[in-house]
Amino acid sequence: MKLDSFVSGQWISPGRDSIEVRSAVTGDVVAHATSGGIDMRETLAHARNVGGKNLRRMTFHQRADMLKKLAQYLTERKDQLYKLSFQTGATRTDNLIDVDGGIGTLFVYASKGRRELPNSAFMLDGTVESLAKGGTFAGQHILTSLQGVALHINAFNFPCWGMLEKLAPALLAGVPVVTKPATVTSYVAHALARMIAESNILPEGAFQFIVGTTDDLFDHLTCQDVVSFTGSAATSEMLQRHPVIAREAVRFVAERDSLNAAILAPDAKPGTPEFDLFIKEVAKEMTVKAGQKCTAIRRALAPSAHVDTFIAALRERLAKVQVGNPELETVRMGPVVGLKQRRDVLSNVEKLKTEAQIVVGDPDNFQIEGADRARGAFLPPLLLHCADPKNAKGVHEIEAFGPVCTVMGYDGLDQAITLANRGGGSLVASVYTHDPRTASEMVFGIGTFHGRLVFIDRDCGKEQTGHGSPMPQMTHGGPGRAGGGEELGGVRSLGHYMQRTALQGSPAMLAGITGSWTRGAPVIEKDRHPFRYHFEDLGIGQTFLSKPRTVTLEDIEHFAHFTGDTFYAHMDEEATKGHPFFPGRVAHGYLLLSFAAGLFVDPDPGPVLANYGLDNLRFVKPIQPGEAIKVRLTAKEKSPRNKQYGEVRWDVEITTDKGETAATYELLTMNAVRPSA
Amino acid sequence: MKLDSFVSGQWISPGRDSIEVRSAVTGDVVAHATSGGIDMRETLAHARNVGGKNLRRMTFHQRADMLKKLAQYLTERKDQLYKLSFQTGATRTDNLIDVDGGIGTLFVYASKGRRELPNSAFMLDGTVESLAKGGTFAGQHILTSLQGVALHINAFNFPCWGMLEKLAPALLAGVPVVTKPATVTSYVAHALARMIAESNILPEGAFQFIVGTTDDLFDHLTCQDVVSFTGSAATSEMLQRHPVIAREAVRFVAERDSLNAAILAPDAKPGTPEFDLFIKEVAKEMTVKAGQKCTAIRRALAPSAHVDTFIAALRERLAKVQVGNPELETVRMGPVVGLKQRRDVLSNVEKLKTEAQIVVGDPDNFQIEGADRARGAFLPPLLLHCADPKNAKGVHEIEAFGPVCTVMGYDGLDQAITLANRGGGSLVASVYTHDPRTASEMVFGIGTFHGRLVFIDRDCGKEQTGHGSPMPQMTHGGPGRAGGGEELGGVRSLGHYMQRTALQGSPAMLAGITGSWTRGAPVIEKDRHPFRYHFEDLGIGQTFLSKPRTVTLEDIEHFAHFTGDTFYAHMDEEATKGHPFFPGRVAHGYLLLSFAAGLFVDPDPGPVLANYGLDNLRFVKPIQPGEAIKVRLTAKEKSPRNKQYGEVRWDVEITTDKGETAATYELLTMNAVRPSA
Repeated sequence: MKLDSFVSGQWISPGRDSIEVRSAVTGDVVAHATSGGIDMRETLAHARNVGGKNLRRMTFHQRADMLKKLAQYLTERKDQLYKLSFQTGATRTDNLIDVDGGIGTLFVYASKGRRELPNSAFMLDGTVESLAKGGTFAGQHILTSLQGVALHINAFNFPCWGMLEKLAPALLAGVPVVTKPATVTSYVAHALARMIAESNILPEGAFQFIVGTTDDLFDHLTCQDVVSFTGSAATSEMLQRHPVIAREAVRFVAERDSLNAAILAPDAKPGTPEFDLFIKEVAKEMTVKAGQKCTAIRRALAPSAHVDTFIAALRERLAKVQVGNPELETVRMGPVVGLKQRRDVLSNVEKLKTEAQIVVGDPDNFQIEGADRARGAFLPPLLLHCADPKNAKGVHEIEAFGPVCTVMGYDGLDQAITLANRGGGSLVASVYTHDPRTASEMVFGIGTFHGRLVFIDRDCGKEQTGHGSPMPQMTHGGPGRAGGGEELGGVRSLGHYMQRTALQGSPAMLAGITGSWTRGAPVIEKDRHPFRYHFEDLGIGQTFLSKPRTVTLEDIEHFAHFTGDTFYAHMDEEATKGHPFFPGRVAHGYLLLSFAAGLFVDPDPGPVLANYGLDNLRFVKPIQPGEAIKVRLTAKEKSPRNKQYGEVRWDVEITTDKGETAATYELLTMNAVRPSA
Repeated sequence: MKLDSFVSGQWISPGRDSIEVRSAVTGDVVAHATSGGIDMRETLAHARNVGGKNLRRMTFHQRADMLKKLAQYLTERKDQLYKLSFQTGATRTDNLIDVDGGIGTLFVYASKGRRELPNSAFMLDGTVESLAKGGTFAGQHILTSLQGVALHINAFNFPCWGMLEKLAPALLAGVPVVTKPATVTSYVAHALARMIAESNILPEGAFQFIVGTTDDLFDHLTCQDVVSFTGSAATSEMLQRHPVIAREAVRFVAERDSLNAAILAPDAKPGTPEFDLFIKEVAKEMTVKAGQKCTAIRRALAPSAHVDTFIAALRERLAKVQVGNPELETVRMGPVVGLKQRRDVLSNVEKLKTEAQIVVGDPDNFQIEGADRARGAFLPPLLLHCADPKNAKGVHEIEAFGPVCTVMGYDGLDQAITLANRGGGSLVASVYTHDPRTASEMVFGIGTFHGRLVFIDRDCGKEQTGHGSPMPQMTHGGPGRAGGGEELGGVRSLGHYMQRTALQGSPAMLAGITGSWTRGAPVIEKDRHPFRYHFEDLGIGQTFLSKPRTVTLEDIEHFAHFTGDTFYAHMDEEATKGHPFFPGRVAHGYLLLSFAAGLFVDPDPGPVLANYGLDNLRFVKPIQPGEAIKVRLTAKEKSPRNKQYGEVRWDVEITTDKGETAATYELLTMNAVRPSA
């Protein structure tokens, strides 16, 4: 099979060279990847001029729906991806992580886009900041979609997940993607790219796919582009130091392999559920994807006293791991991705052996089921033990990217913290403890060296999603050796593809731009009550000003007995004496809210269907018996929801009849859209 | 005066070389800066081992109080800084921006730290994410202070503001600072650094000051450090490409000069207030700090038809600008910072002249008051006109960092957008328009090329804080040519000095770490009502479960008539038929809230002083007459406020007696601390 590229809406293969791509299992050539010859300037221009414009015309909700459709389309075809993936060495379980995990990420972003983002093409960031005493000048941060390209350079180990976990946030953010897979597993990425292109679900120009080298692509990057790289530190550093990156201040997100640690806490002694979970997790992380995960556990830290017990338990567990042809159901671990990778792993194991010794596994002597030892890139799980981790260097820095882990003992939590941080920054660390104080110490001891910390104990042991599994809801990436980048983390990651801009202007101007009314912006009073307007017809700033109502002592007592809320500050003048906030008996806050609703309600059926919530209520000034209150209600924001109704957020202020603010809040209503003619 | 450095708690001056620093006004030597010879490894170690540890022991509120004290201390001594600053060419107005602006930034961060941050040493980022169906595994993002150093490299133009605007967020974030000023104005920075050190307000190791070169400092940076650079593109690129930056993934924040634009919108015709504001702002930005501001207006875009009118008006205005000795009250613009700077400006003006012509000002012929033309670095305001900006290149790329601006005509808003973005990324653009639709078009047209957009019109003209003035509340920095960095923006900027870590674990473990109860974490029921516990004694998770109360039709009708809220869905079964959310008449949401308060209240005087607010209320399921409700109230978070009381946030759930959720919200109370014995 010849692997072509998808650029400017066409599948082309202008490559100068053809690279043979071989099966990890049989060593047979499974595909030919062409390389070079693509007009990169043209590719970027297509993304910017066609893809970006198409995506930016859509709202977040529309893009979310698009991601959901794509996820459904791919779900129906995932068996094809499984089948190809076996050749990369992936077992059935590995496929679940790569293929289903990738599609699952699309689903999560689709769902979060719908639930957590507005149905518009921009996001407000934070609230309005007052910038002048007179109230005529204010600020508001806004996020808008970059006008460039998301260049995604993926690693070989997760050809599907890697592509899709980068694709989802970029597309949801409105930025077109150019994806470049790692060559050695590019036939799987290619099949996935074919599906995406054939689905016709994404708008033109939103997705392009380049097999082979990126040639002069970097020379054409600008400040509107984002490079998101996953792979080796060496390549990452080279790319990050490309002159264009600094000159144009191109955003560069790197996710590199790291020496992730699993730490058995002192309380998790042998015999505890946490000890067993530690064994299980280390074994899993060594064998899933044959240990070729940037998040895999490379260093297992255990109290010195328990190291021998740990090694023995892990030896027993790893003995059950059948290595061989990943298509076989009995096989638990496939080969690494290729013979070169196998050589690299063994070479790094040799380096580790200067500071540690192999205590489980023998690369020259292990069973292989259903495959030819000489042609496949097979390795057994290899556990090393480093006896002097404090003075060792390589075990904290050299990564054997395969089924390899080093166990090391520590004495006291402080030393565990020091050793964990010797990794110089990692994607993830897992801690096995049932003690929140230990967990807390770890957060403040190793947190800033890690992008993710997983606490595994008996309470979550069955459901926990794994040391090595990035979740779309949580950030993925880590400081230092891990590259300093950040991906995923729910809608947070859209920020990587959007520009934050500080807007400054009059409140009226800010409201005009953002569609969000703010104090100081014009208040529009019309003859009809604002609740009489259908969703589309209601204007931001439309306001209702109520008549005053006096709150009597009888009201307060009546409300107290009716509701049962006989708190002394409402009932007992004497007991309230000396109260730090109340000058005497005061009205219930809920009485004020209820009276306010009575003052602004428009009782007959109309476009306002329901009050479904309330935000940011603060009682500012207590109201004493005999004081009068009135209420202002102003349409603040509208967010379309479906064809029947939309959400309206109202800014509400309860004041005394003298104008002192008693309470402020935001009221949420569901408003019907205009009935179609 | 010999300028020494403050490292490891001592003023030292081991310099190899001594650099003469001269007055911009008289050319006289005003100081000697030594350079080199400082042990940078030691300096960083002092910050990390002493300063960082000291700062991390403090809460955000304690650090905020420290910033306020420092601001007050400096305020009392600011006249000394004014006096020195005159030698840099700064006028009295310029001093207000540099000195008072810098101190003001400290005050704003002090205030925001108190009001917007918790009284602890970490921040939660976002809400708890459910990660497993059974509810036993969840995620929460947390921000903790980096364990490294903030290395601040400042530009010459704002020796005080530049130091303080970087200092405030770093210290508030708990990260110690090493500051390196630009040599040419280092005598002002040195005086400020002396004051900071002498104040003894900052803990040991929190602040160090290096005059001269950074020598091998970069070689010792790690993933826990942050470099924040302000200055030229050339230096910035060189530093950013230092091998350690990519290798260790050191955070690098750059703020570089850019070709900022001011855009007169088509609606702002001559005769409108916006036209006059445009003239005023361009003139101001050309002359304040003699145009040596990274945010200054370098390109003035006006509709082609109005270019001549604009030039004439600006000429008239600039004619009134007296250049000369900045100490004189009559002088509106001082010299640029030195003779070399003057040569650089003139050299860049020569380059601009290949595409534009000078229409206002003559560098060889202008009046200078109270100073010697031959010895000071004086320049007049210089306005150029570029007749063909579409085809020009240099006017969008070459920055004459002095009182220089180029005016260019445009035809139609689309062309204005294209021209503005030809700057390749800027710190700021200002738009002069009174039309929100034009403003909106500009936001989506040029927003992603700009860190800040200011809309100036008649409504904010008097109070607007200026095109060129970064405000501590708003982000400062811009994409592309501006360096791609971001500073300020209120507490947002603390993120530059903190690590976001994704925590995963059981709800109980997350609650134990963060001190924030979440659903699934243990609920603690004690004999006494949780309202009976003083602030310190109340445990997170302590819960009150109420008895049920039936909501009758009479209750609903009674509440309706009492409050005046006779909305049809509560009153009229017939009218409610076919309602999309309600199965028939339902209870008022506020009735449920009020009954809930009646169910959970503990009426007698006790530690709970007041309910001061309510957040995130959502009505999930309507309650019909005859249904019973009950309420669960769980202590979610505590935040100490002062010696008398603290804030408690309660998680509240109203359910039917069958357990279906009717409403959820968070209740805020103020709780008294335990009386001292």
